[in-house]
Amino acid sequence: MPAKSVTDYIRTIPDFPQEGIMFRDVTTLFADPRGFRMAVDQMLHPHAGEEIDLVVGLEARGFILGGAIAHQLSTGFVPIRKKGKLPGKCIEQSYTLEYGEAVVELHEDAITAGQRILLVDDLLATGGTAEAGISLIERLGGKITACSFIIDLPDLGGRAKLEAMGMEVHALCAYGGH
Amino acid sequence: MPAKSVTDYIRTIPDFPQEGIMFRDVTTLFADPRGFRMAVDQMLHPHAGEEIDLVVGLEARGFILGGAIAHQLSTGFVPIRKKGKLPGKCIEQSYTLEYGEAVVELHEDAITAGQRILLVDDLLATGGTAEAGISLIERLGGKITACSFIIDLPDLGGRAKLEAMGMEVHALCAYGGH
Repeated sequence: MPAKSVTDYIRTIPDFPQEGIMFRDVTTLFADPRGFRMAVDQMLHPHAGEEIDLVVGLEARGFILGGAIAHQLSTGFVPIRKKGKLPGKCIEQSYTLEYGEAVVELHEDAITAGQRILLVDDLLATGGTAEAGISLIERLGGKITACSFIIDLPDLGGRAKLEAMGMEVHALCAYGGH
Repeated sequence: MPAKSVTDYIRTIPDFPQEGIMFRDVTTLFADPRGFRMAVDQMLHPHAGEEIDLVVGLEARGFILGGAIAHQLSTGFVPIRKKGKLPGKCIEQSYTLEYGEAVVELHEDAITAGQRILLVDDLLATGGTAEAGISLIERLGGKITACSFIIDLPDLGGRAKLEAMGMEVHALCAYGGH
C-alpha cells in the first residue's frame, strides 16, 4: 500500500465561502492522527538544524499549526489576529484578501528586534494576509526565516509575491486554479 | 532562584474587552519559550498514560494549545468554531458568555462515536463556551476524558458547572474575581 500524502486527507468543498470557490478544507487533515502528525512534521523538516526563536501564526488555522510547531521547537508562539481581538497595545495592517478586506493586529511588544521567526498559516492564496503579517513582523524588527504553509494556490500569485519580497516560502502541496 | 510558574508569564489588562473586566492575557505566556513549553506540558501531565483519541479546541486560543497538545499526543485535532467559519456540514449550539451571546459549530463528521476526547481552551470563566462544546461533542457520541484550561476563574462558576455535568476539569492556575 503506497504511503498517504497530506493531499489524501484534504477535502475540497465547492462554493465555500462563496460560489465558484473550491475551498480546500484542512480540517479533515487535522482531524486524522496520521494526517496531522505528518503535516506538522513535514512543515518542520526544512527547518531542522536552523535556529528559530519564535513562531508567528495567522488567525485562525495558523494557530493550530503554529502552536504545534512552536511546542515541538520549544519556541514561543505569537498570534497575528483580526482587529479588536488582542487585548494589549497593537500595531495594525490592512490588506485585501480573496473574499474582501480586513485589518490584522500584532501586540507591539510581542517581538524583540532580531528574533528569527517562522511565519505559519494553512493556505497561501493571494498572499495578502501573509504580506500583512510580514509587514507587522518586520516593523517590530523581526527577521523572517521562512513562511510555511500546508497548501499553495500558485495561480493566485501569493508565492510569487512573497518570493519577490525576498521570502523563503514552503508549502506541502499545491493546487491549480482557485 | 525559584522556578517560575505559568502565572509569572500571564499579564492582566484592566477593562478589556469592556470596563470592569480584568482580562488575563495568555499571549505573554505563549510568546515566551519557557512559558509556552511549560503550559502545554503541564496540561498534558494529568493525561500521561491515558488513551486519548482526539483533541478538540475552542476558537481561537484553544487552537494554539490544542494544536500543540494533539501533535504531542499524536492524535488528531478538531476545532469548534464560531458560526459560519467551518466549510462542511455542521451541528450548532448557542450559548451565553461573559460578554454576550454566540453560536458555535462542529463539523458533523469530525467525531466518531466512542472517541475519547480532551477538550482544550485557555480560560474557564462562566463555562458557557465549554458547555456548548461538550454538548456538541456528546451529540456526536464523543466521550470526554477531561476539560483542560490554563486559567480557572472559579468565582464565575464554570468549574462548578462542568463538574456538575460529570466532567473532569483541570486548570494550571486560578484567579479570584473576574
